Amino acid sequence: MTGDPLPSWNEGPVKQAILDFVARVTAEDGPDFVPPTERIATFDNDGTLWCEYPLQIQVFFAQQRLHELAAADPSMRQRQPYKAFLEHDVATIHAMGKEAVFDIAFTTHAGMSTEAFADLVADWFAHAKHPQLGRRFVECTFLPQRELLDYLRANGFRTFIVSGGGIDFMRAITEQAYGIPPEQVVGSSVKLRFELQDGRGMLVKTAELGSFDDREVKPANIGLHIGRRPIFVFGNSDGDLAMLRYALTGDGPRLGLLLHHDDAEREFAYDREFHLSPLAEALDKANAYGITLVSMKDAWRTVFAPPSA
Amino acid sequence: MTGDPLPSWNEGPVKQAILDFVARVTAEDGPDFVPPTERIATFDNDGTLWCEYPLQIQVFFAQQRLHELAAADPSMRQRQPYKAFLEHDVATIHAMGKEAVFDIAFTTHAGMSTEAFADLVADWFAHAKHPQLGRRFVECTFLPQRELLDYLRANGFRTFIVSGGGIDFMRAITEQAYGIPPEQVVGSSVKLRFELQDGRGMLVKTAELGSFDDREVKPANIGLHIGRRPIFVFGNSDGDLAMLRYALTGDGPRLGLLLHHDDAEREFAYDREFHLSPLAEALDKANAYGITLVSMKDAWRTVFAPPSA
Repeated sequence: MTGDPLPSWNEGPVKQAILDFVARVTAEDGPDFVPPTERIATFDNDGTLWCEYPLQIQVFFAQQRLHELAAADPSMRQRQPYKAFLEHDVATIHAMGKEAVFDIAFTTHAGMSTEAFADLVADWFAHAKHPQLGRRFVECTFLPQRELLDYLRANGFRTFIVSGGGIDFMRAITEQAYGIPPEQVVGSSVKLRFELQDGRGMLVKTAELGSFDDREVKPANIGLHIGRRPIFVFGNSDGDLAMLRYALTGDGPRLGLLLHHDDAEREFAYDREFHLSPLAEALDKANAYGITLVSMKDAWRTVFAPPSA
Repeated sequence: MTGDPLPSWNEGPVKQAILDFVARVTAEDGPDFVPPTERIATFDNDGTLWCEYPLQIQVFFAQQRLHELAAADPSMRQRQPYKAFLEHDVATIHAMGKEAVFDIAFTTHAGMSTEAFADLVADWFAHAKHPQLGRRFVECTFLPQRELLDYLRANGFRTFIVSGGGIDFMRAITEQAYGIPPEQVVGSSVKLRFELQDGRGMLVKTAELGSFDDREVKPANIGLHIGRRPIFVFGNSDGDLAMLRYALTGDGPRLGLLLHHDDAEREFAYDREFHLSPLAEALDKANAYGITLVSMKDAWRTVFAPPSA
């Protein structure tokens, strides 16, 4: 590889830690060599690969669905939790907490086939815009992270997403957004029911939660979906702490990174008080646990790619 | 590619169907071209990639564990279902049915970490032998299928296992046996619990079933783990019928194959009456559903590779 593989990263200790780590695990004659099959990297998605503030992108998506449902059943406008979503009452939504909010997002699509759902998500991403950032949601991915994913893959890593977001929602966009195929996306999920519809086998989304992929469930789902301990983990909240510790307490070279949203000018600044994805314990313990803190303000030369026309 | 990619397959309609299918989906200018990202192939394991008669290989493995447990608690020798396993009472084990038998196999390792379990499985495979076939279990894989997996991968397919077998059990051996990495293995699973043991994050196997990956659960787990409809499926029992139909009722070119164990001389001959993995409905409906039947006796020139010294 010629030139700087991470041009959107500022020179400094974080960029150097990444470059050094990759150099060490790929040096075939070195003491820290890791064979390519073991080069597993897992990334959180919301707040790590794309923005999550003031609401996760999937929550914006669910709002649209709730508006459709409320058109058929106007009584929803008077009932919580729907009222808060329909009125975009962010304070009330924040107070519900992450799992409750995602649970509502997941169940709004019960009864739909996975294929119809994927089409709906793709259609929505084609036009929907982030209200604060004024750019299409698909352009709310972080450019430094896309460079990092490319860089890791160019060095023999397999890159996975392990996120609290809905697995089917993410898969509709991750190949285009990050070059990550569906089978390398792990997320929260509802149970799927196989049925034949007019002779065609379909997978139908139910309202029953399969798993909410957050906190201790993240390493458990890594066990289920990947079956190896990652050697590289990137997260941004307390929800990623168990996954970071799982990776960092393994043998051999490990790198765990935690993005701190401290950049109100270019993106957002929040941590402890953001009830939908707090960063508190992981921030306090980062040093003790060997986690490398990444200040968005300091570490990233650029946050977003220029929006397309 | 030069030479015959499938030398252990006899010339005939099945081999020709496979070669034709791969040629069609990889012909970039042809009407049936499928981009590499969509070339998903799923294989059952027990009875499809390796033998499963008279007991699935994992059941033999669980028997050893039950002997260890019974040494500590001799009352197990008098209690069913353990008595049948400990006495190798195959008729009684068969009568229990597949899910009950595997459920016993899965729960015998509750409380163990996934890493300790993987070591135990690897140790067992290093020496344990199939009592009827007289060869090490790891050499009970079918040579024609290993050639087929290689051939598909050489043509841009991603090969997955989707099996009723335990996901952690299979993963300990699938890379060596088939060139299939852990993250491309889907199977039955118990729930995992993340915990810190002496400061090290571990995944502990519980006794709680996550999913029993058989029949309609197979396409549902394909939805969870892979997120795409396969275009190529190979199975051997009624437990694979839903997965075969899921693949075959999609749009575009599809190939679904069903191995019929009709070769008592080289392997085993069984179908309807094998209670641990019956082949009945799928055999009766194969023609109607567009499934290609594969007679082991007719289709395979060789069944097993020569055993190692």
